[in-house]
Amino acid sequence: MSGEEGLVSVGSRPLSDYVLSVVILFNQGVKRVILKGRGGNISKTIAVYNAVKDRLGDAVKLENIEIGSEYLNKKRVSYIRIVLSR
Amino acid sequence: MSGEEGLVSVGSRPLSDYVLSVVILFNQGVKRVILKGRGGNISKTIAVYNAVKDRLGDAVKLENIEIGSEYLNKKRVSYIRIVLSR
Repeated sequence: MSGEEGLVSVGSRPLSDYVLSVVILFNQGVKRVILKGRGGNISKTIAVYNAVKDRLGDAVKLENIEIGSEYLNKKRVSYIRIVLSR
Repeated sequence: MSGEEGLVSVGSRPLSDYVLSVVILFNQGVKRVILKGRGGNISKTIAVYNAVKDRLGDAVKLENIEIGSEYLNKKRVSYIRIVLSR
């Protein structure tokens, strides 16, 4: 995959899987990666951001953070969207 | 308490407690309220923001969101800081 934007949805897999996904996307030339997590995975989503920042440092920029809630199976859940760019 | 800035640390109490804390701070004339949550409470911190936004609507403005990690008892934990103003 290559292009302008990539999405990494953080779920129940190990943290390192998502960190790797982000790094691979950037290596493939994607300009902007969106990390998204819902409910109980929000904390892990931020941990993924921290780990990416540790590895890539100034090569990656925190462009935007968006928080809110959405309906999933008629239940309201909080979410976070972290936009990273290089 | 009155003044420029108030801090609400989101922990293990019920969500409504924190929503009430924010509303009371604003009613007391505080200009800016910082919602802070760590680790597993980050999702709840966003839920508090959503609930405050539901109740106060345009009267409250999302000024900034900061994410990162810090050391607590030698363990690294993620955090979120949500800055609200009116």
